[in-house]
Amino acid sequence: MSVHFSSRVDGSRPNAISLAEARCRRDGVALTKLNDSNPTRHGLAPALVPGVYEANPRGPLAARRALAEFLAAGGADKGAGENAGGIPAEAHDECSGVDPDRLYLLSSTSEAYSWLMKLLCDPGDAVLAPKPGYPLIESIARLENVETIEYSLMFDGSWFFDLPRIEEILDSDEGSRIRAMVLINPNNPTGSYVKPEERRRLVAMCREHEVAIIADEVFFGYDLEPFAGNARLAGESGVLTFALDGFSKMLAAPHAKVGWIEVSGPEADVAEAQARLDVIADDFLPMSDIIAERIPDLLAAAPGQTARVRERTRGNLARLHDLLATDPLGVTSVLRAEGGWNVLLRFPSSIDESELVLSLIRDHRATAQPGFFFDMTSNGYLAVSLLPEPDVFEAGIRAVLAAIGEMLGE
Amino acid sequence: MSVHFSSRVDGSRPNAISLAEARCRRDGVALTKLNDSNPTRHGLAPALVPGVYEANPRGPLAARRALAEFLAAGGADKGAGENAGGIPAEAHDECSGVDPDRLYLLSSTSEAYSWLMKLLCDPGDAVLAPKPGYPLIESIARLENVETIEYSLMFDGSWFFDLPRIEEILDSDEGSRIRAMVLINPNNPTGSYVKPEERRRLVAMCREHEVAIIADEVFFGYDLEPFAGNARLAGESGVLTFALDGFSKMLAAPHAKVGWIEVSGPEADVAEAQARLDVIADDFLPMSDIIAERIPDLLAAAPGQTARVRERTRGNLARLHDLLATDPLGVTSVLRAEGGWNVLLRFPSSIDESELVLSLIRDHRATAQPGFFFDMTSNGYLAVSLLPEPDVFEAGIRAVLAAIGEMLGE
Repeated sequence: MSVHFSSRVDGSRPNAISLAEARCRRDGVALTKLNDSNPTRHGLAPALVPGVYEANPRGPLAARRALAEFLAAGGADKGAGENAGGIPAEAHDECSGVDPDRLYLLSSTSEAYSWLMKLLCDPGDAVLAPKPGYPLIESIARLENVETIEYSLMFDGSWFFDLPRIEEILDSDEGSRIRAMVLINPNNPTGSYVKPEERRRLVAMCREHEVAIIADEVFFGYDLEPFAGNARLAGESGVLTFALDGFSKMLAAPHAKVGWIEVSGPEADVAEAQARLDVIADDFLPMSDIIAERIPDLLAAAPGQTARVRERTRGNLARLHDLLATDPLGVTSVLRAEGGWNVLLRFPSSIDESELVLSLIRDHRATAQPGFFFDMTSNGYLAVSLLPEPDVFEAGIRAVLAAIGEMLGE
Repeated sequence: MSVHFSSRVDGSRPNAISLAEARCRRDGVALTKLNDSNPTRHGLAPALVPGVYEANPRGPLAARRALAEFLAAGGADKGAGENAGGIPAEAHDECSGVDPDRLYLLSSTSEAYSWLMKLLCDPGDAVLAPKPGYPLIESIARLENVETIEYSLMFDGSWFFDLPRIEEILDSDEGSRIRAMVLINPNNPTGSYVKPEERRRLVAMCREHEVAIIADEVFFGYDLEPFAGNARLAGESGVLTFALDGFSKMLAAPHAKVGWIEVSGPEADVAEAQARLDVIADDFLPMSDIIAERIPDLLAAAPGQTARVRERTRGNLARLHDLLATDPLGVTSVLRAEGGWNVLLRFPSSIDESELVLSLIRDHRATAQPGFFFDMTSNGYLAVSLLPEPDVFEAGIRAVLAAIGEMLGE
């Protein structure tokens, strides 16, 4: 398999000067760069931000080394239910660890999506994205002149991939324009993980159709119930894979603005992908040394933060089950969620989602996201977050149940 | 005049729920967001990065206020030769100050170029960019599926805009695809500022052709000789203008990763542009609170840093003039540079630029950028940086002069 890369990246060969400079680097010959415009290499860095800027497209090496070590040791997932221990081995073949040079540090997974669409897609090309799903991906794809083709997740008591339909799409005419499949593991708001057998089939399909995988695993550590055999796609060797994660969820620090891409797959694909991704990264160089120097400490805090937030989400989910079980109306349920920060409430579809939210706003000074926001295929769903303080969460759910009762004329 | 905006940004009107939420904000009615996935609003932020994340598309308000105050007071330009004092008044009409809500904080001017091309250009649309010029803009434009159309800067002892030719381009068929004109003030590597009369003509042309101005003014404070009446385009009211600057040059801190966009122009254009730019910014939210909290201190250090680097560049330029004046060969000169960090050396065009640099690498363990790297229209130029420590700078220039002598068989 060999994936298609976009024509956006200038893949032209280096000129004679670049080659001569490269030879000197290889032979350890130090060159005085008369055109060096990096002030930090000329003793001009400000006292407030000392140090020499290395301008490494993949991010400061020291920070990538710290991250690689952290990921190879299992990251922040260790505490995560059934996933304990298993992940690093499964994710990173034979515990082979993580190569810092396979990592790209950037500001967010949004930026990662943007770079990867630039890398893989020319205008008119497409990426496969899950439905239901979070609308951000479609918005970013549109900004990158990339079309989003939806694939469905089905629910029959738990969520699963409609694999035959995905194969159909890949085999279709429009399928020839698909350059990447976005796998969100676990997905938002369905909370569903990619199961081992699904993963095996999806990797095979993508390899066969020369489609890369973009695996968004920011919620991976937040499992809500034991689920055997789940594993990160990070480190997948069967197909060109870009695994995304960051501090927004893992560290509950969206304001830190630290995200990363881990590249894996067949060697030839990885080499070509990184040569081109380096060009994109070199144009933007987003990682600040002010943040990078704090990454080791932030990584050390990540497992504790993940555990702390997981306790909150699991506690609120248990609380939610109690509230629904004791709801006199008994017409509202919660869809089974395996992981993540959000769950989907289901109520009688005779109630319009928008009307329900508008009545929440009007009569209960509360708001939520209706199912259509996530492209749910039918009416009757509300997405709620499991993050609020327990009392706030409980009050919110009671408001929803009251609003549903009012709309049913109880 | 009303500029063209791309179809990349979803300009669809907000739905009933968004409108109801907006009314509540307007009326000061606090809503409990049952779907709030911002962990910092639920007491879950890590101790290492405390505080509540406001997720403001334009960047943290406190940091933007500090920046607006700094800019309204003349920024780091105060020390800059003839430009002293005049800038804020000229740049910001009637010293009206700078509105923090007209500012967007991001990681770099590269990111700013990327956002603005997304805002203004559909695939196949084009931006005007200077020739000679730094190749980064063409590379970013290509990543954004945007074509770069060059306009020439001419040299007759100092650099000037070929205004009739620019008008021709704008009036031509391809001109109808031009959405923005990139003005680099001063340009790199020519070091030429946009002169008051040129500015007046260019603003009029852009307004007439419904073309926005992207003004890259990162080198503005680094004037190399007195030049009366130069002013920043930041705050220009005659046409939709996006002025770019950041800490890479102003603070000599490329590793801080702080840049910004200042939007100005006719009210209607600014309102429409910001509504759409907010959508782009909201998808990426690049500014980290870890950096933002340091911005006031970094701004305080900026004037000192600009003055310090300006002393280095002016000192090296004087040194360069001495070295050229006393060069026994006397065949090498430096093009008049008004500002910036780089200058262009001119040598007999019988010497091939690439050959010269290759001989520098081979025989003098030094390297530089040949003129063709910047699309100089003829052979015989070398770009050198004015940043190095004086002794390093002098040794480098002596190496260049020696290499030229060797190639002339002296």
